[in-house]
Amino acid sequence: MSKEFNNNNNNDYIVQPKFFTFGESDVDKLLLENGKSFGPVTICYETYGTLNADASNAVLILHALTGDAHVAGKHHIDDKKPGWWDEMVGPNKPFDTERYFIVCSNVIGGCSGSTGPKSINPETNDAYNMNFPVITIQDMVKAQHRLMQHLKIEKWLAIAGGSMGGMQALEWSISFPEAVNGVIALATTAKLSPQSIAFDWVGREAVKTDHAWQNGYYKDNGEIKGLSTARMLAHITYLSDESMSKKFGRNLQENENISFDFARDFAVESYLEYQGQRFVERFDANSYLYITRAMDYFDLSAANDGSLTNTFRVVNKDANFLVISFSSDWLFPPYQSEAIVRALLQNDIACSYCCIESSYGHDAFLLECETLGEMIHDFLSNLED
Amino acid sequence: MSKEFNNNNNNDYIVQPKFFTFGESDVDKLLLENGKSFGPVTICYETYGTLNADASNAVLILHALTGDAHVAGKHHIDDKKPGWWDEMVGPNKPFDTERYFIVCSNVIGGCSGSTGPKSINPETNDAYNMNFPVITIQDMVKAQHRLMQHLKIEKWLAIAGGSMGGMQALEWSISFPEAVNGVIALATTAKLSPQSIAFDWVGREAVKTDHAWQNGYYKDNGEIKGLSTARMLAHITYLSDESMSKKFGRNLQENENISFDFARDFAVESYLEYQGQRFVERFDANSYLYITRAMDYFDLSAANDGSLTNTFRVVNKDANFLVISFSSDWLFPPYQSEAIVRALLQNDIACSYCCIESSYGHDAFLLECETLGEMIHDFLSNLED
Repeated sequence: MSKEFNNNNNNDYIVQPKFFTFGESDVDKLLLENGKSFGPVTICYETYGTLNADASNAVLILHALTGDAHVAGKHHIDDKKPGWWDEMVGPNKPFDTERYFIVCSNVIGGCSGSTGPKSINPETNDAYNMNFPVITIQDMVKAQHRLMQHLKIEKWLAIAGGSMGGMQALEWSISFPEAVNGVIALATTAKLSPQSIAFDWVGREAVKTDHAWQNGYYKDNGEIKGLSTARMLAHITYLSDESMSKKFGRNLQENENISFDFARDFAVESYLEYQGQRFVERFDANSYLYITRAMDYFDLSAANDGSLTNTFRVVNKDANFLVISFSSDWLFPPYQSEAIVRALLQNDIACSYCCIESSYGHDAFLLECETLGEMIHDFLSNLED
Repeated sequence: MSKEFNNNNNNDYIVQPKFFTFGESDVDKLLLENGKSFGPVTICYETYGTLNADASNAVLILHALTGDAHVAGKHHIDDKKPGWWDEMVGPNKPFDTERYFIVCSNVIGGCSGSTGPKSINPETNDAYNMNFPVITIQDMVKAQHRLMQHLKIEKWLAIAGGSMGGMQALEWSISFPEAVNGVIALATTAKLSPQSIAFDWVGREAVKTDHAWQNGYYKDNGEIKGLSTARMLAHITYLSDESMSKKFGRNLQENENISFDFARDFAVESYLEYQGQRFVERFDANSYLYITRAMDYFDLSAANDGSLTNTFRVVNKDANFLVISFSSDWLFPPYQSEAIVRALLQNDIACSYCCIESSYGHDAFLLECETLGEMIHDFLSNLED
C-alpha cells in the first residue's frame, strides 16, 4: 500500500477503505460484554505503509466518538479534505508511513463502514436500529482484536488514540496485554466522570425527544434536529471558554446591532448551527446514542472496585505509555490523565506524561499537531530501539 | 409587614406577594431597549421588614434566571419550602429584616407574577407568547425603577443579586447611579461569554425543536420535553465537575450493574431527569427563551466599545461594591468578577472582593450561606455608618 504514498503532501495520497467480516457462524461470533453473542461483524479499516517481515512495525490508530477509519490521505483525488489526522500520519510525519504499518479501524456501533445500528440484521433483513446491542469500549476493542488476527499481527508496536480513541488504547492494554508494546493515550480518561455522563444524557435526550427520531425508526436522519442539538452541545465541551472567547467573543454574525430576536445573532451561534447541520448530514442518530452510551459505561477500574492501580496489574510489564493531556481540556481534564499515570507508575510501568499548554480545550489533540507530533515521533522511535 | 416575622425560624413567617401595575396609558409605558413602548406592566414583588422614616434602609434583592419574588418566608403555613434565599433573609439574618426593608421583585419576561409571555396582551385578549417583546436586563431594571418610585424610595441602601440578579444589580449602578448606595454582586459577570451564549443557544434549540412547543403556542407546558432538556443542560453548568463527582460519582441509581440499555442507570441521570421534570411543571417555556436571551444580550460595556472602565465612569462615586465569586464556578468564573473589580478600582470606586473557595460551582451563591452571610452582614452594616 505504501507505494500509493509518494511524497510529503498527503493531498496526492489515495487510500481506499477495506472491510473485514467475521462472526458469520455461531462459533465465530463476538461475545459482547452484555453476555450475548453478536455477528456477523464487519470492520471498516484503512492501512498505510507496509507491514515488515516480522510484523513488528504495526501501529493501530483509534478514533474518537464521531471519527472514522479514514485517518489520512484521500479516497479520491478530488476530495476536498484529507483524513481526520492527516497532519500526523504520512511519510516523514509523526506516524511515519515509511517506517510503520498504520492501521485505523472504525469502531463497531458507528456509521462509517463498520457494523452499527444502520446495518442490516440478517434475522430480519431490516436495519437493527434500536435492536442493535448496547456495546462497550471493550466490545469495540475485542472486534479490533479479531481484525488484528486477520492482519496476522501478533503485537502492535503501539496503539494510539485521543479521547474515545484513548479509552480504546487503554482498554487494549488490559484486555490484550500481550498484544500491546506501546500505548499513546491523548486527552482521555480511565473512566467517564458524572459530568460527562450528564452531558451525554442530555445529548441523547435531545435526540430521543425529537419527534423525527421516531423511537429510532426514522426515515431521514437529516430531519432529526435533536441530533444537531446534541452535536452543538457536545461541540461546546470540545472547545474551551478561552478558545471561544478568542475565536468568537461577542461578535455579531451579520448585523451591526443585536436583532432583538431569537434568530442567530452572535458568531458563536452561527458556528454552532453550522456544526449541527453538517453533523446530521454525516452521522447517524442511533449510532450517536450507542457510542455515547459505550463511553458512559467506560470505567477501566470497575472490575477492581475502582482501583486503577489494581486494574493495571495485568498490563505487559515491558509496555511503554505516553500519556498527554491539554491544560484547557475540561471534558477530560489533566487530573484524569494524571490518575492514569499514577496508577501506571504504581505498577512500575514505563510512562511519559505531558500536560501540553493549549487554549484549544479537548479538541487540542487534533489541533496541537506540532508539539504532539514531536513527542509521538520520539516515543515511537524509542519503542523500536 | 415586619410584624409577620416573629422569631428566627422563617418557617413561621407568612408573606404575601404584591403587585404593582404601570404603563396602562401611552405616556406611562415602559420604553424598551428595542425602541418600542410596552405596557401595561405588572411587577410581582414581596417586601419584608419596615421602611424607616427617611426611607434609608431599603434593600433590593434580585433573583436569578428561574427565581421569583418569593425570597424568604412562606406564603402559606403549610408550604413545604420557604423562599429561595430563606437562609439569608429574615430577622437577625444577613439581610436582617429587623433593620432593613427588603424588596424582592420578579423580573418582567418571567412567569412568576410579573408581566411575561403568558400574560394577556390587551390588544388581542390572548397571551403574548412569542409576540412578547425581546427584553433586556436593562428593561428589567427600568421596570424595577418604576416599582421603586411607587414604593417612594429614592435610594437603595443596597442592591444585591447572584447570577442574573448580579447583572441587574450592576445594571442599576450605571442606569440609575443616583439611586444606588451599595451593590452586592455575586457569581456574576459584566457580559455573557460566548460559551454561556452557546449553552443558552443549545437550550433554546432544545425547546424550539420540540414538536410540543408549537412555535410558542403550546397548550400544555408540561408536555415540552425540550424544556426539560434545556433545564438539565443548564443544571450541569450550575454544578461543578468536583461537586458532581462528590455527589454522584459513577453510582448507579437502582441496579447493581449497568443495564446495557438507554434508560437511566446512573444516579446523575436520575437526578437530572428529576430536575428537568420538576422544571417543566413550574416554569414557562417561552419565559425561558426570553430570559436567556436577555442574558445573552447583557454586555454592560457594549455602549463603551467594550471598556468596562469607561462604563463605570457614571457610577455614583460614593457607592460601595461587594463582589464575590466562587472558585469552582465555571459558568461565571472568578476572572469575570475580577474584571468588574478592576474596572471599579480604575474609577476609584470602593470595592471589596472575595473569591470564596467552594466546590459547589455556580450554585455556590445559593449554598455557601455561612461565608456569604458574614460578608454581606458586615458590608450592609458598614453602609449604614
